[in-house]
Amino acid sequence: MNAFLRAWVTLFLMLITLLCAAPTRAEDGYDLWLRYRLLAPEQAKLYQDHASELIIGHATSTQSATRSELQRGLNGLLGRDISLSDTVTRDGAIIVGTPASSALIARLSLNTQSLGNESYLIRSVVVDGHAATVIAGREDIGALYGAFHFLRLLQTGRPIDHLDLHESPRVKLRVLNHWDYLNGQVERGYAGASIWDWWKLPDWRDPRYTDYARANASIGINGTVLDNVNAGATILTPVYLEKVAALADVFRPYGIRVYLSIRFSAPMEIGGLKTADPLDPQVQAWWRAKADEIYKRIPDFGGFLVKANSEGQPGPEDYKRTHADGANMLADALAPHGGVVMWRAFVYSQTNPEDRAKQAYDEFKPLDGRFHANVLIQVKNGPVDFQPREPFHPLFGAMPKTPLMMEFEITKEYLGFATHLVYLGPLFEEVLSADTMAHGKGSTVAKVIDGSLEGHTLTGMAGVANIGTDRNWSGSDFNQANWYVFGRLAWNPTLSSRVIAEEWVRMTFSNNEAFVKPVVDMMMGSREAAVDYMTPLGLLHLMGPGHHYGPAPWDASESQADWRPVYYHHADRLGIGFDRTRTGSDAVAQYAPALAAQFNDIKQTPEQYLLYFHHVPWDYRMRSGQTLWSELISHYTQGVDDIKQMRETWSQLEGYIDAERYHQVATFLAIQEKEAQWWRDACVAYFQNASGLPLPTGYAPPAHSLNYYESLSFPYVPGFSSW
Amino acid sequence: MNAFLRAWVTLFLMLITLLCAAPTRAEDGYDLWLRYRLLAPEQAKLYQDHASELIIGHATSTQSATRSELQRGLNGLLGRDISLSDTVTRDGAIIVGTPASSALIARLSLNTQSLGNESYLIRSVVVDGHAATVIAGREDIGALYGAFHFLRLLQTGRPIDHLDLHESPRVKLRVLNHWDYLNGQVERGYAGASIWDWWKLPDWRDPRYTDYARANASIGINGTVLDNVNAGATILTPVYLEKVAALADVFRPYGIRVYLSIRFSAPMEIGGLKTADPLDPQVQAWWRAKADEIYKRIPDFGGFLVKANSEGQPGPEDYKRTHADGANMLADALAPHGGVVMWRAFVYSQTNPEDRAKQAYDEFKPLDGRFHANVLIQVKNGPVDFQPREPFHPLFGAMPKTPLMMEFEITKEYLGFATHLVYLGPLFEEVLSADTMAHGKGSTVAKVIDGSLEGHTLTGMAGVANIGTDRNWSGSDFNQANWYVFGRLAWNPTLSSRVIAEEWVRMTFSNNEAFVKPVVDMMMGSREAAVDYMTPLGLLHLMGPGHHYGPAPWDASESQADWRPVYYHHADRLGIGFDRTRTGSDAVAQYAPALAAQFNDIKQTPEQYLLYFHHVPWDYRMRSGQTLWSELISHYTQGVDDIKQMRETWSQLEGYIDAERYHQVATFLAIQEKEAQWWRDACVAYFQNASGLPLPTGYAPPAHSLNYYESLSFPYVPGFSSW
Repeated sequence: MNAFLRAWVTLFLMLITLLCAAPTRAEDGYDLWLRYRLLAPEQAKLYQDHASELIIGHATSTQSATRSELQRGLNGLLGRDISLSDTVTRDGAIIVGTPASSALIARLSLNTQSLGNESYLIRSVVVDGHAATVIAGREDIGALYGAFHFLRLLQTGRPIDHLDLHESPRVKLRVLNHWDYLNGQVERGYAGASIWDWWKLPDWRDPRYTDYARANASIGINGTVLDNVNAGATILTPVYLEKVAALADVFRPYGIRVYLSIRFSAPMEIGGLKTADPLDPQVQAWWRAKADEIYKRIPDFGGFLVKANSEGQPGPEDYKRTHADGANMLADALAPHGGVVMWRAFVYSQTNPEDRAKQAYDEFKPLDGRFHANVLIQVKNGPVDFQPREPFHPLFGAMPKTPLMMEFEITKEYLGFATHLVYLGPLFEEVLSADTMAHGKGSTVAKVIDGSLEGHTLTGMAGVANIGTDRNWSGSDFNQANWYVFGRLAWNPTLSSRVIAEEWVRMTFSNNEAFVKPVVDMMMGSREAAVDYMTPLGLLHLMGPGHHYGPAPWDASESQADWRPVYYHHADRLGIGFDRTRTGSDAVAQYAPALAAQFNDIKQTPEQYLLYFHHVPWDYRMRSGQTLWSELISHYTQGVDDIKQMRETWSQLEGYIDAERYHQVATFLAIQEKEAQWWRDACVAYFQNASGLPLPTGYAPPAHSLNYYESLSFPYVPGFSSW
Repeated sequence: MNAFLRAWVTLFLMLITLLCAAPTRAEDGYDLWLRYRLLAPEQAKLYQDHASELIIGHATSTQSATRSELQRGLNGLLGRDISLSDTVTRDGAIIVGTPASSALIARLSLNTQSLGNESYLIRSVVVDGHAATVIAGREDIGALYGAFHFLRLLQTGRPIDHLDLHESPRVKLRVLNHWDYLNGQVERGYAGASIWDWWKLPDWRDPRYTDYARANASIGINGTVLDNVNAGATILTPVYLEKVAALADVFRPYGIRVYLSIRFSAPMEIGGLKTADPLDPQVQAWWRAKADEIYKRIPDFGGFLVKANSEGQPGPEDYKRTHADGANMLADALAPHGGVVMWRAFVYSQTNPEDRAKQAYDEFKPLDGRFHANVLIQVKNGPVDFQPREPFHPLFGAMPKTPLMMEFEITKEYLGFATHLVYLGPLFEEVLSADTMAHGKGSTVAKVIDGSLEGHTLTGMAGVANIGTDRNWSGSDFNQANWYVFGRLAWNPTLSSRVIAEEWVRMTFSNNEAFVKPVVDMMMGSREAAVDYMTPLGLLHLMGPGHHYGPAPWDASESQADWRPVYYHHADRLGIGFDRTRTGSDAVAQYAPALAAQFNDIKQTPEQYLLYFHHVPWDYRMRSGQTLWSELISHYTQGVDDIKQMRETWSQLEGYIDAERYHQVATFLAIQEKEAQWWRDACVAYFQNASGLPLPTGYAPPAHSLNYYESLSFPYVPGFSSW
């Protein structure tokens, strides 16, 4: 018996050795928040009794995807194979599906008929005398969403023994916009090249496409615009539509529809027509035929995204037609198939001397009510361009008869590219919770977006993707959080960005409270830090020309006045800021009367928007009692100090997570501190030169002269170079 | 006792479950041939007794790299932690190092002093009464190379019990040329973007750089040129040199030196000079200062690679100076630091009416003996441009006083891009084993390259890299073999490409003989298949204009005559081929007399070069007895049939390897068959139109009309689009 025992022990030790020696891959961020690593034993124990067997169909591709995700997730998190079963044989069964796919679920009479297409419920039930958890939707996709939610509960350490959840998306179209070119470059992309390998499509379907779909479905994203809004016509040729169809095939099981950015003049470029006039019958016929051709290949094609008559793009105004004429023509071509047009309001003219911040409103407000039923107007969160901070766009609340989509920018074009740790949740939340006052207090932007304010059922939210071929998808680990928070807020625009950050940290890194708390705090403060070291107190658009890298408040190299920083800050000996009051550009008048009055009054204007609405003397007294000049320097300095503090925080967290990701974050924070200091110093040097004022006491002077900062130039900036 | 036993068994089963449930990553090719997966038990057993403990220093970064590679490799292959020891405590020790780093090795008196810098020996020895294996070099890098060799023995299933190996590289500079631009694009790159993340350097050193260095060191590559031969001046600015230095730091432990492609006119562009005349003292001083600056940052910097006066690049001829003047000026700047100049012979003029195949020889042959001691002339393998098949370059053997480097193209610019399975080993071997007859029979190109023919000690071989950000590095699994075979042949140009293919298959995929044999056969036949479906019988340069994708024998769109296919094939009613005989362009005269006579005589010319040297009537009788016309069609058809056969072979191998790589190879072979058919059909249609001859009986006509093939156009071709 002793010998037998020894043999067992030997075998056991061998196995342990094997286990330890098994080549473990370095953590590289590829798994995103779907990181199904073995839970801590005490946590896994909580779930053992509630995950004994899986009862789920696989008759459809969505059901198969749901099944394999649950297997993958539960096996990874709990460290054992969960068995598949057709019936409940013991406590702890997980029953997943729809009344149509599962007789068991049909029998439970869960009232799934009252659920929306994409809704689900998760409920602790007793079936045939056994405790079980049911994840049910009316449609397959609801069950898939529910499965991801269930896994998230485990990943974030939540109890699962008494569940009674019911979730419905509040926004209908939850869409990523890829600013990807067909040559593989990504405009404002800081995470490598485009993940669409157009060249090898349709034959080769990279497994990464499936992981992309999984990640999106896990946060409820249900649409993706594959190509850049600065679109060419090639994407609409048969060769490329075949490639698009292959991607649509991969995404379909995950509830993700494909959309395309189209070039308004495509009928001329690939259709051989002499015009793209939206009222020309031949043009209309061409688009109808093109839509028919697309839907023949992709029956669930989502529709078109259009950037027209902006920054050089063709559009209906080339033919003296309105944006409504253009959008409606495309909408009519798509309508028979159920497609939509997402028409961008980001429009300004190179010849219009009007305040650029006013132009979109001026152009679109008069068109309210003129768009066909399947048109949405896609509006950037602020009136200028995705700056670190802007007031909300005045079109929100101003076009009651038109569904307005939100357009957020997930990629950090103006917020430090790949390396800066800037969690965008607070930015998104600030905009969504802003009150338009359109129907009095409580008329939040979120209610405009989810349709509840004006009773729209066609609703949407778009995010400009931060996704590329980098192994970690988004250029940094923390940038993944921005993709995540976008998806979660598109599902429900009233969620708290802090709660979402905490979810993400737990899923991505660790459930260790000693790690979670400081990291969430760091994330939540990070956006304000960036505002401070870049553009505090309502400043904006101070970055380098074209490439948008680094500070350049002095820059006058751009061809257009409203691409130049000086257009925005107006700094001189007397003061600083853009006067948008009634006696200035009167941009305040684009807001609801109560807000207009508030923004018009320097004393009532929130100081975070001060220099956006007012030109203010340097010696103006801020609420703190300090002069504007002192307060400006104080903010710039605070921004740098905040990053130093973030580095300090992070340095305390070594060992809580894998060395690979720890080290990359640490390196990127060091880059961020260097660049924050550069932003602060260059802006301080510039504004000091403009104001002629001495630095307030106690503040370090810039490390270099203004000349030095002005002399820097940056070839090969990512996301911009060489197109 | 029974309870105790049961507990053990339970624990054991739990562990097995855990082991099986541990999230296993999909195979994605990232590991390349350094795929240290657990060996089959019967194989691992052979090695257990010869890998009991590891005795190795870690005083230098190269020693540390060697140690961690051996630990990683042995742990992975044998499935257990190999222990580190300071002394031999039992049989099976592996002792690694140099006499300087290891007292044990010093004591063994292995005569390492007679070894070269990079040489090593691996020997089975007895130390202190114990059987052991010693891996020793004179320098650390030799020991690292030896360690990789030792691991290769295990990976390929070779015995390790009676070893007595001694290896020295036959070529001094074994260098990859990256045609990478600083904006991240790769000219002729089909594996994604550049792996150099210039933007985040020098701060962020991607762990991938280390894996790149490991892969290269494992096959003996000891240099890398980071930027494209079509170079800008920016790489020489301080900001970029700091980034280059960071890469050099990563590569240094692996014996890899960094080189840069430079722009000849850099003294004007970033130096503020009015000229780049190599005889101008200010220009000379600028380059000396630049070299000093570089070496201050990178003490072991390798040197410069230069493309001058070719395809629009600036060069010494802009100032009526010779290539020797230009190269020597740079060489003199580098000489004090030990650097070299690799000066490319790929030179032809847009205004020279001479046969393009002759121009490099015409230009460089007269300069033999005029280059300073640290200049190498880098010559492409053939006189035209990396075609599927060309005769060897006539400069080989023709410049006895000058070290000539070989330049191979690893990236498959002309051989099917990422997807076609074309193993380049036979191409490389064909060139290296070609006999220049420079000193009579046996004067092979290999002997020119390794210096033995003319007694040169400065020798080199360059390969244009096929490496990019694709997860599998090279765009396909089989393309990794081309990187591998290049390195192995650079180490020893007389190795057999079949032996190397077998090594690679075993290391990359499997040691299962049922898999190895058919895959090696398939690889060995693949290049001839590509020649057949693209450019058989000495044809070349029939591909699409600029982007080089697909067949376009008809193309006349290029601005230069010698960029047009018709320039090369001269097909008409009477015949086909380029007359390079004495009565033609007399390119034959550039070869040694015996070869010149052979190539001048249509009857003696090897048929694989027939149409390269001769314009031949369609009804010419080939050795087979068929007419040239029939034989041409036969070759084109055979090429397609070969790919069909490769698909058939591969389809029999499902299950021998992981599903992920199996599936990708299968998909790519399907693409290859489709494109091979297209090549065959388009060329047959074109040549049929030219010859006016009916297809020989038994051959299928092209699927489409010639018009159809001519009408195809390809936007966004990888490796070329939109620069």
